[in-house]
Amino acid sequence: MKKHPEVAVVGASGYTGQELVRLLLNHDGVRLTHLVGRSDVGQRYDELFPAFSGQTDLRISDEDLLSLAKKVELIFLALPHGHACQNVTAEVLEHARVIDLGADFRLKKADLYEEWYGFVHPQAALLSQAVYGLPELNREAIIEGSLIANPGCYATCSILTLAPLLKAGLIEPDSVIVDAKSGVSGAGRGLDLAVHFIECSSSMKAYKVGSHRHTPEIEQEIFRADGEHFISFTPHLMPMARGILATVYGRLKEGVDEQIIKEAYLDAYDKERFVRLLNPQGTKYNLPETRFVKGSNFFDLGYRIDERTNRVIAVGCLDNLVKGASGQAVQNMNLLLNLPEEQGLKQLPLFPG
Amino acid sequence: MKKHPEVAVVGASGYTGQELVRLLLNHDGVRLTHLVGRSDVGQRYDELFPAFSGQTDLRISDEDLLSLAKKVELIFLALPHGHACQNVTAEVLEHARVIDLGADFRLKKADLYEEWYGFVHPQAALLSQAVYGLPELNREAIIEGSLIANPGCYATCSILTLAPLLKAGLIEPDSVIVDAKSGVSGAGRGLDLAVHFIECSSSMKAYKVGSHRHTPEIEQEIFRADGEHFISFTPHLMPMARGILATVYGRLKEGVDEQIIKEAYLDAYDKERFVRLLNPQGTKYNLPETRFVKGSNFFDLGYRIDERTNRVIAVGCLDNLVKGASGQAVQNMNLLLNLPEEQGLKQLPLFPG
Amino acid sequence: MKKHPEVAVVGASGYTGQELVRLLLNHDGVRLTHLVGRSDVGQRYDELFPAFSGQTDLRISDEDLLSLAKKVELIFLALPHGHACQNVTAEVLEHARVIDLGADFRLKKADLYEEWYGFVHPQAALLSQAVYGLPELNREAIIEGSLIANPGCYATCSILTLAPLLKAGLIEPDSVIVDAKSGVSGAGRGLDLAVHFIECSSSMKAYKVGSHRHTPEIEQEIFRADGEHFISFTPHLMPMARGILATVYGRLKEGVDEQIIKEAYLDAYDKERFVRLLNPQGTKYNLPETRFVKGSNFFDLGYRIDERTNRVIAVGCLDNLVKGASGQAVQNMNLLLNLPEEQGLKQLPLFPG
Amino acid sequence: MKKHPEVAVVGASGYTGQELVRLLLNHDGVRLTHLVGRSDVGQRYDELFPAFSGQTDLRISDEDLLSLAKKVELIFLALPHGHACQNVTAEVLEHARVIDLGADFRLKKADLYEEWYGFVHPQAALLSQAVYGLPELNREAIIEGSLIANPGCYATCSILTLAPLLKAGLIEPDSVIVDAKSGVSGAGRGLDLAVHFIECSSSMKAYKVGSHRHTPEIEQEIFRADGEHFISFTPHLMPMARGILATVYGRLKEGVDEQIIKEAYLDAYDKERFVRLLNPQGTKYNLPETRFVKGSNFFDLGYRIDERTNRVIAVGCLDNLVKGASGQAVQNMNLLLNLPEEQGLKQLPLFPG
Repeated sequence: MKKHPEVAVVGASGYTGQELVRLLLNHDGVRLTHLVGRSDVGQRYDELFPAFSGQTDLRISDEDLLSLAKKVELIFLALPHGHACQNVTAEVLEHARVIDLGADFRLKKADLYEEWYGFVHPQAALLSQAVYGLPELNREAIIEGSLIANPGCYATCSILTLAPLLKAGLIEPDSVIVDAKSGVSGAGRGLDLAVHFIECSSSMKAYKVGSHRHTPEIEQEIFRADGEHFISFTPHLMPMARGILATVYGRLKEGVDEQIIKEAYLDAYDKERFVRLLNPQGTKYNLPETRFVKGSNFFDLGYRIDERTNRVIAVGCLDNLVKGASGQAVQNMNLLLNLPEEQGLKQLPLFPG
Repeated sequence: MKKHPEVAVVGASGYTGQELVRLLLNHDGVRLTHLVGRSDVGQRYDELFPAFSGQTDLRISDEDLLSLAKKVELIFLALPHGHACQNVTAEVLEHARVIDLGADFRLKKADLYEEWYGFVHPQAALLSQAVYGLPELNREAIIEGSLIANPGCYATCSILTLAPLLKAGLIEPDSVIVDAKSGVSGAGRGLDLAVHFIECSSSMKAYKVGSHRHTPEIEQEIFRADGEHFISFTPHLMPMARGILATVYGRLKEGVDEQIIKEAYLDAYDKERFVRLLNPQGTKYNLPETRFVKGSNFFDLGYRIDERTNRVIAVGCLDNLVKGASGQAVQNMNLLLNLPEEQGLKQLPLFPG
Repeated sequence: MKKHPEVAVVGASGYTGQELVRLLLNHDGVRLTHLVGRSDVGQRYDELFPAFSGQTDLRISDEDLLSLAKKVELIFLALPHGHACQNVTAEVLEHARVIDLGADFRLKKADLYEEWYGFVHPQAALLSQAVYGLPELNREAIIEGSLIANPGCYATCSILTLAPLLKAGLIEPDSVIVDAKSGVSGAGRGLDLAVHFIECSSSMKAYKVGSHRHTPEIEQEIFRADGEHFISFTPHLMPMARGILATVYGRLKEGVDEQIIKEAYLDAYDKERFVRLLNPQGTKYNLPETRFVKGSNFFDLGYRIDERTNRVIAVGCLDNLVKGASGQAVQNMNLLLNLPEEQGLKQLPLFPG
Repeated sequence: MKKHPEVAVVGASGYTGQELVRLLLNHDGVRLTHLVGRSDVGQRYDELFPAFSGQTDLRISDEDLLSLAKKVELIFLALPHGHACQNVTAEVLEHARVIDLGADFRLKKADLYEEWYGFVHPQAALLSQAVYGLPELNREAIIEGSLIANPGCYATCSILTLAPLLKAGLIEPDSVIVDAKSGVSGAGRGLDLAVHFIECSSSMKAYKVGSHRHTPEIEQEIFRADGEHFISFTPHLMPMARGILATVYGRLKEGVDEQIIKEAYLDAYDKERFVRLLNPQGTKYNLPETRFVKGSNFFDLGYRIDERTNRVIAVGCLDNLVKGASGQAVQNMNLLLNLPEEQGLKQLPLFPG
């Protein structure tokens, strides 16, 4: 009997890392063998994260990336930006495939790291080798890849909503506005007054208006890195745990109507296992709601034509920790390891949740 | 000693009506003497609404509007649309001032009622007499008015955010997009699966995309009823009780910069008691958050210039039941009765809340 | 290849029914073939419950119980009390096993139905045939059973916390108090002002003090139906979707100490797959929290000895829709169908959730 | 015209301090003139706490207690335990009245500080001088007092629920159990993973079982410091911002029935402005809910007799930041300064909230 491929998670103590562990422990095509972290080294993982109590014997280790790469087939990195690009080397990539859930390999143009992240990318050469890991857009490249840059949560939601419209040339590129709303888990597990229950549990706010780091990532993918068009992207924080909803506005080009929009979306997503395109004239559920994707790898998508203003208004939603992060990473892993793309990702949404 | 003016609330059992009662019982310049409803007639109000337990002896009555008008100086109507316009007559207005918290007298053009509300307005003549009750824009007219159309919650938030920019001609009228988010209390007290705790407590959604009834009201006030420009208005439902946040996008006209935007807002709001204009370069609180206005009559306003896309992105927020409804109605009442505009509205935000 | 057993859900449109569908669609040992309901007959289930959109082609049918029993091996009933006892007959039970998630077959003494439910049980004879479906207590009887009375959510949580203490005679029977707290999903999907988001989203209350219907069920199981001892059971409603936490108080009998309590719990649960006994002196997680069981079939249990008052205070928690209802029903199904007890129930808790 | 008394808040940056500021800024019988803190000295208070934006010009100062006492009539201390007892001296009390919202002067027996708080009280002599500031129990003593120990939030709720029953000798002292539930604001504003939104927003837990520091305070007041009886007190954390609900259990003494319980409560509270005693046979609202006291100084109280177990089960609730802390402190201030007891505390509950 063929042994299951072994995989490791580096940076297992954030919400993204924890979600990876949840998905990988229930995945029957791979074996999670290493959890690496900087703190709590030697501790049982299930004592640190009691949701897993008794479900795994793994302990946190501080193994370095290269020796880890020699032991496993695939490594997930869930680290703050600026860390992965210091440690992923050509030698590491000779031994193991790497899926980086951070931002360090997402942008093709190295100078965008200076502009948006404030550091000089130390391995610009790897940027062209890295594949932007959005399977619905780049499946073939992912399969062949060795270093996958797993997209940001806002970026996944925005790109999946916009890409078919721009690829088909249906909306004016400079008219694109993305107004996105996220639950609090997207802000991470670090201590900060902004995520204290009392400070955010009954409130809404916009933040990083015009300056959020997922902006260049979205522009790169929807405009295919032309560098000539820009979007307005406004993130908002909402009082809930999981879920992103992106409301997208675009001015229709001459002659574009609802039927044409529909066909573009069908072309793009009709065969996609994890995209659920809602019919505007269909059932009651014709605009997405985050409750219906929670805990699942689904991306739900609806849209309307606003004839008074000649705009298309499209709404996409997903669970930021699943399709927006760890679920998508597992989807990428399945592609890399030649497993069925949906393996380990069949969990239905947890509703009520 | 001068007797306090007596006032009545018709439709006291919705959230808006209840909020009026809360504010009026604590208002030391008027006396709330009548509560009118269709159901529970004869019942003590504080048994129906236990928050008021022991704080008022008033009972629900079913008095008709005209006889009520003969007894009190001012009547608040908090009714579903289509009701006020059947009952407010010239004779009623001879006896008492009326503040309608519904939509029946907000639109100047009668045919908009057919288009957006689906009924032929039975008293189109009153539409020109009614004053749109947004004190920061129409204070002088309100003071002289007898019938005040209290603005919608989304409309108040959107108009206050947009009006100074359009009045000063700083943004392209056809570029205006309002992406608004509301807590659940805006959906009212009626039973509906959509507001069942389980269905909305951890979820977000857009609704009535391109078709929400506050749209014509916003267009009327920001474009001064020109009928030539249209906005995209998208409301969203968020899992919290009180609060509206409107994120507004507009393309800057040639030569407009942050300083010009700032001056337009200062011109409009510098002396306004209930508008708090946040300084983009100021303190940590430079973009509004609903938690800081909850339970108060404040409207908080922030903005950014997005130089990459040449847009202004402004964010307004308020408590939908206070400045977005009942607080604004009390503010209008104060103007009508020649009381200090802030009387009964000095409550500070309830934070934490 | 052996065909999978076919199963049906009657009453698929409440939260409990929906949760059964979620678990059964992901269960690879049975095939869900029928969904029966009174309303929406003929409709696609995934249009009614969009979380399942595209994941099942099943439609609601109105098949009667007997003809259903002839088609499938096992039927789940998720109906309001008073319905199952009208329809489950000896003939039905000849054709199919039945797991009733309602209360109709939980109590052994027929007169308790009059006392607590207000109706005369129409099939008292079946009460002795029915097995109270709490696998950790009654596994052997369940395996042999044909009619399983799936326990109530509060009852499961309370009984699992108390039974080992009473079975071992460690606490005074008449001293037992259960103070239980539940999320809102336990109140069901019916429209009611009490579950309107606005009415319950930021509030707590006790309800049915001294009169909740799970009380006799708990007494029956922990006192083994002696009819001589009574508990105080107080349910509370908490502003969250899923989860029950029961805090249980009992006066220690002479000579009982922490070690003896610990052994009684270990005896009872050491080998139980779904019970996680927390060590009072153990890791940080030594008292249960509902977030760590959400979406899973786990029951987490912790305890303390209060030496000042000579009481044991034990705390149990579970997800009311999983171990408190549908997960437990699937666990019972697995026992009845001779499948591994944990099949289809391996989902890890959804945290953050 | 008589000048208003001037008051100061020391420790203005926690939730309790902030709530004091909210109440005092709207109080028209005193003037808040000093805000003292250890950090952010020199900063405008409204920049630190944007809810107050533009509503006060006060800045944080680091004035020491004695010099402050020479400037104002009354000082509120909202400090972590162990601080007030170091700084409040006889000399301070010669110049100003002090209301301490912390625990340092609540317990009469100095050795209880060692047992429960782990420090030797440095000014045991002041303990007998301090008055436990629960106006409904100790009004006369408060009026004469110079140093008021403002009760804990859990303690206020528990004592008000229990004291009339024990004073009248209606329940067995050793049978008393308090199962209390609190919103998250009670945990304070400090950063801690336990109050991260994600960790507590959808969860319940018991904590400090048998060891919470409000226990001796409750015992002292309900047993009048006899030192012979003990209660079980179990606090729980609930996913909401404000509110405490205490469910209290006591075995009835021989011959005690509902009527006797009712009279004891009426005796105690019939004339109390801030206690609302709910009638068990009365209106729909006959058991308290935190939503109906939120933001107000009310304490709502209901009860049931459980005849099966011969217990009384009483439920009390309040807003932990108002009647449970800062509102009660203002009530005490009014008594000390000979102002109407309800001045500045007439705010009605903010519902919906």
